[in-house]
Amino acid sequence: MRIRVINPNTTHAMTAAMGEAAQSIAAPGTRIIATQPDSGPASIESHFDEAVAAVGVIDEIIEGEREETDAYVIACFGDPGLLAARELTRAPVIGIAEAAFHMATLISTRFSIVTTLGRTGIIAEHLLAQYGFTHHCRRVRAAEIPVLDLEESGDAALGRIIDESRRARDEDGIGAIVLGCGGMAKLTGEISEAVGLPVVEGVTAAIKLAEALVGLGLGTSKHGDLAFPRPKTFTGHFERYANSSALR
Amino acid sequence: MRIRVINPNTTHAMTAAMGEAAQSIAAPGTRIIATQPDSGPASIESHFDEAVAAVGVIDEIIEGEREETDAYVIACFGDPGLLAARELTRAPVIGIAEAAFHMATLISTRFSIVTTLGRTGIIAEHLLAQYGFTHHCRRVRAAEIPVLDLEESGDAALGRIIDESRRARDEDGIGAIVLGCGGMAKLTGEISEAVGLPVVEGVTAAIKLAEALVGLGLGTSKHGDLAFPRPKTFTGHFERYANSSALR
Amino acid sequence: MRIRVINPNTTHAMTAAMGEAAQSIAAPGTRIIATQPDSGPASIESHFDEAVAAVGVIDEIIEGEREETDAYVIACFGDPGLLAARELTRAPVIGIAEAAFHMATLISTRFSIVTTLGRTGIIAEHLLAQYGFTHHCRRVRAAEIPVLDLEESGDAALGRIIDESRRARDEDGIGAIVLGCGGMAKLTGEISEAVGLPVVEGVTAAIKLAEALVGLGLGTSKHGDLAFPRPKTFTGHFERYANSSALR
Amino acid sequence: MRIRVINPNTTHAMTAAMGEAAQSIAAPGTRIIATQPDSGPASIESHFDEAVAAVGVIDEIIEGEREETDAYVIACFGDPGLLAARELTRAPVIGIAEAAFHMATLISTRFSIVTTLGRTGIIAEHLLAQYGFTHHCRRVRAAEIPVLDLEESGDAALGRIIDESRRARDEDGIGAIVLGCGGMAKLTGEISEAVGLPVVEGVTAAIKLAEALVGLGLGTSKHGDLAFPRPKTFTGHFERYANSSALR
Amino acid sequence: MRIRVINPNTTHAMTAAMGEAAQSIAAPGTRIIATQPDSGPASIESHFDEAVAAVGVIDEIIEGEREETDAYVIACFGDPGLLAARELTRAPVIGIAEAAFHMATLISTRFSIVTTLGRTGIIAEHLLAQYGFTHHCRRVRAAEIPVLDLEESGDAALGRIIDESRRARDEDGIGAIVLGCGGMAKLTGEISEAVGLPVVEGVTAAIKLAEALVGLGLGTSKHGDLAFPRPKTFTGHFERYANSSALR
Amino acid sequence: MRIRVINPNTTHAMTAAMGEAAQSIAAPGTRIIATQPDSGPASIESHFDEAVAAVGVIDEIIEGEREETDAYVIACFGDPGLLAARELTRAPVIGIAEAAFHMATLISTRFSIVTTLGRTGIIAEHLLAQYGFTHHCRRVRAAEIPVLDLEESGDAALGRIIDESRRARDEDGIGAIVLGCGGMAKLTGEISEAVGLPVVEGVTAAIKLAEALVGLGLGTSKHGDLAFPRPKTFTGHFERYANSSALR
Repeated sequence: MRIRVINPNTTHAMTAAMGEAAQSIAAPGTRIIATQPDSGPASIESHFDEAVAAVGVIDEIIEGEREETDAYVIACFGDPGLLAARELTRAPVIGIAEAAFHMATLISTRFSIVTTLGRTGIIAEHLLAQYGFTHHCRRVRAAEIPVLDLEESGDAALGRIIDESRRARDEDGIGAIVLGCGGMAKLTGEISEAVGLPVVEGVTAAIKLAEALVGLGLGTSKHGDLAFPRPKTFTGHFERYANSSALR
Repeated sequence: MRIRVINPNTTHAMTAAMGEAAQSIAAPGTRIIATQPDSGPASIESHFDEAVAAVGVIDEIIEGEREETDAYVIACFGDPGLLAARELTRAPVIGIAEAAFHMATLISTRFSIVTTLGRTGIIAEHLLAQYGFTHHCRRVRAAEIPVLDLEESGDAALGRIIDESRRARDEDGIGAIVLGCGGMAKLTGEISEAVGLPVVEGVTAAIKLAEALVGLGLGTSKHGDLAFPRPKTFTGHFERYANSSALR
Repeated sequence: MRIRVINPNTTHAMTAAMGEAAQSIAAPGTRIIATQPDSGPASIESHFDEAVAAVGVIDEIIEGEREETDAYVIACFGDPGLLAARELTRAPVIGIAEAAFHMATLISTRFSIVTTLGRTGIIAEHLLAQYGFTHHCRRVRAAEIPVLDLEESGDAALGRIIDESRRARDEDGIGAIVLGCGGMAKLTGEISEAVGLPVVEGVTAAIKLAEALVGLGLGTSKHGDLAFPRPKTFTGHFERYANSSALR
Repeated sequence: MRIRVINPNTTHAMTAAMGEAAQSIAAPGTRIIATQPDSGPASIESHFDEAVAAVGVIDEIIEGEREETDAYVIACFGDPGLLAARELTRAPVIGIAEAAFHMATLISTRFSIVTTLGRTGIIAEHLLAQYGFTHHCRRVRAAEIPVLDLEESGDAALGRIIDESRRARDEDGIGAIVLGCGGMAKLTGEISEAVGLPVVEGVTAAIKLAEALVGLGLGTSKHGDLAFPRPKTFTGHFERYANSSALR
Repeated sequence: MRIRVINPNTTHAMTAAMGEAAQSIAAPGTRIIATQPDSGPASIESHFDEAVAAVGVIDEIIEGEREETDAYVIACFGDPGLLAARELTRAPVIGIAEAAFHMATLISTRFSIVTTLGRTGIIAEHLLAQYGFTHHCRRVRAAEIPVLDLEESGDAALGRIIDESRRARDEDGIGAIVLGCGGMAKLTGEISEAVGLPVVEGVTAAIKLAEALVGLGLGTSKHGDLAFPRPKTFTGHFERYANSSALR
Repeated sequence: MRIRVINPNTTHAMTAAMGEAAQSIAAPGTRIIATQPDSGPASIESHFDEAVAAVGVIDEIIEGEREETDAYVIACFGDPGLLAARELTRAPVIGIAEAAFHMATLISTRFSIVTTLGRTGIIAEHLLAQYGFTHHCRRVRAAEIPVLDLEESGDAALGRIIDESRRARDEDGIGAIVLGCGGMAKLTGEISEAVGLPVVEGVTAAIKLAEALVGLGLGTSKHGDLAFPRPKTFTGHFERYANSSALR
């Protein structure tokens, strides 16, 4: 099974780290292809960053379709471009935020999210609402760490995430913590150990959900509103999509 | 990995059929132990049946804990005893209704349920609400087939399920169908082929979710409201639980 | 009128105390029959305890039907087995949590719950959601007292409940308090006096709702999903239900 | 116990009929005082009618307070002036819509409303939402009968209500019907018999809820947002309220 | 364009201040007619005050219809009589609470309300729910200032509103503040400057929405449940409505 | 006042038609600048089309900022890129779907949407949920007309929209219709006349809301989660955003 893990930002170190986390958890027969777009933001911390990154996700799906990928993972906690991506393929496409939410509800009745910057909280709230998990999440907490500091500032960043996670554990009445950034994938073990309750991380969760769907023979429905897009004219930079939208 | 598939009713044929469906989808290293309680209803078609069956589920969890089971599946679409079961173990416990709902939302934006009897629709509605999927389900449809007729009446039952599923496909604006009874596990392929859109069946979905959680090293949270029950006196038929409630 | 007050746990002292509270509030013509199952947990503080207790509730309903009871009250704040119980009789069946919630919304716009252990808060939250009162309840508070300590530790327990109730009054922006355990029935007067706002207790509330329904000639609907369960085979310890499920 | 049944419209025949229905169901010691304002609309079929009628309700509460009434019932299905009325008294005040909704949820999992005119459906929808019962009500149906025709057109009106109720029974997947107008109180028996499932009527339901609250010693909370209104200047026709708002 | 700004209370100073705020923001061609009923409460701080004030609103709409008004604004934050008013005219009718909520959601993802008295918070909560904005409002805060103190106590009142607004800004995770009383209209500039984020005030917001609807040629729908009320008998003080209800 | 009306697709005829509709409704001092991106899809009928179009919207906002635009309108019914656009400017940004929803709720209690293709219904449903209007919309109806056919097939398309709108009027219990595509802007008058109830069209509604906000001195909040994006590296085609994200 080939799973394409798409890092929607352009920071190679994050792609590599998430790829490693993914491969480490993957089933024996699963091959992880960790990729990233050539064009896009170095990190995703706003609606603007997300909107731009969605195009990169689309390009990576189209690229993946050329190689007959079995499943896709969108490895940014805002799940950018998720429904667009689903329209472009028969394979399953899993966002890491949704993956983490689903898994957290299977092992606890209530969870909290510990994310990077407070300003991205609204993105998590909108996703929780769309996916149906508003009432399962007690609180969205931010450690106020820019995404790339997860790469660079090492222990300081880890310390703040652990501190915030402990506050979640002690104050929120929860059973599990969801890590709110793909960049935290490599820290999951340390956080989990320090906090002492189940810590759900989206990249790894998404890999297992992708494997699960492929194992079930289930892919994105092509009946109804996730059918392939109608072919049409695209102009300018996006002329390349005139054909892609007719992929099938 | 050992997954205990608990059929909460006492009909051996269903246990066997669900066990087979489970094993057929399981990963190479997964061993399915399909069981059922000695005591309980032959089928589950009401709140009453469910309440009685929950005790059987509990007994099967306790039995499973003696054998150090890796994960449990509760193989009845009402997910009877799910939260009680989770309190009794560190392993993941997955209900087949929740499993099917989660999987269906990953491959479609909206689904419908095709279940056995109309009177069980309220059980599905309550679960959808508790799990957060009320708005993802367009409609709960009943083929008006008693559960055990799935075993006995064969093609007639299959025909009615397919008819109802086609109506769901054509009228409900959906992308996927969820089968609303564990007894339909063995029919999934035929229904799916006849209807032509993704058909999500709970037993198989639950197996893959259980494998996924075990793969992630995640089990039921013992922090907070799913912690092991406080030890206490039980009387009469249930005296056996005085010790079980202190399992850990 | 005969109202069967079913204590779902097996602690005689609680049965007696709740029976007294019930009789003290009952209309002149109402006779309270306070009972409890022979088999079950000594107190109910988890989903597990609740699932086991639901069987005791069922047995008590079946026993009550032999005596042509006019109404039933399920006297545990989690309303264990409520919908199952309703299926087994034409009489009204009232849970004490729902009774307290309904009454509280008739005399205030918002209320808080003061319950025993924090871990049971999730049970209250699920009931609030199912009954429609999520937005009427500002907060579920726990005095962190095990249920049986209500019997034994007397004034210390009372003091903690009063303290928590005062905090609710002062911090939550509410008009009424709901007591979250049948074991608090005998303390209602003292709490109410100490806190100075309406305190709604479920056992007494349920008695009056039961009398009200009987007075209206209304019983559990036998049209639709609360109809008597379909008769079927039950095995083992539960063989006795093979006939009961055909009660009507 | 003295319960003041306030007909918010000015049609004497309705006041009398609702008073009779109320008295027929009341407990032995309960005395029903059925009243109506001198000023107001002959029937209530719009937001406008309701807003005007609310003043009549207020006047009747103030009148009732002079007589030390034990409880109030607002006998129009839109519950006009309900929260205003509650602010003016320590006694319980029950609206007939809320009363019917509460009772219907205690004997069924889902109900439908059969009301008079389609244009009043929005009033019912808003009340369902405010009280928390949106998901318990499958459908608001209108027999398209003006309120006063219930008085005058007799059998024709009854026939249409029965027809619509039967459609509700057969199409809506419900267990009970709520009658959506106080003017239907006298028809409850005939409708119920013709339709064959529990029919909940608000006037009678409210009487029993009022008796229940009085029996419990519970009245409208004066802590928080239902406290007596702050005394203040009123001008013109409403100068009389300058003192009333200081009632306590 | 003529917009009738109806102050539902009878305090001339507030009418004048709101009229000025309205005119100052109005388009060149817009003429503001600021009025108030002769009869009613001097301020609106409870459900009771609101119910009485709704009649004054109705009278002012009827008066406005004689002059062929282009749009109406109901200038009290509880939007008293809003749907009744809409039934009486083809012109748009805008409440200042709804106006402020709508505008706030167009410039921020989440807002808080700063209102006068805590006891009116429930009115705001009910409106948020009815209009759909429950999740857009983080918190309803009260400065605990009686409405008329806004007129009289000047700087002290302003100071408390600013303090509460700053707490909202710093603690609530919001992008905008909604002022919860028409009496704050004249203070908007000062509050906004002191707090440093967008402050949305309802009177001015409603004027611009009214102008917008008139500019679009849109008025209150007369199809369905906001159609003119059915003509009928009114008695007593309200006899004058017998004809008004047939206005069209 | 300068309002930039951004057609997110690349079809000049639509840009022109929407620009005309906008200018025809604009206030005397308002200048409409109707634009479209150079790069993007010719029409927007899927999540994929929308994700690509969002980049065009961003480019148009950046272009608009160079000219110190007073307000922006995103003229596609899916409101693509709305929150991203808001992050990039202090000016108000209005989507035409949200504009139409807001306006419809001010003149009716319930509305239906008549859109182009059924597959875009899910986009409308997600927006209704996010904006808070799920319960105000009775039904999303599709005339099953591809967007560009609105340009080309003229009367046939108009006829189908009118037919569907009449069905909405007659079956849905609504007071207003919302047109679900910017391409219908030029047809509003004809549809409205043919259907006989208020028809709300988003482009014109958005212009008036934009004028209203500018008139109030309100712009997108820069406090909290709509603040300007943090400056960062962008690579490849999107390198141009490295500076744009620091616009302020």
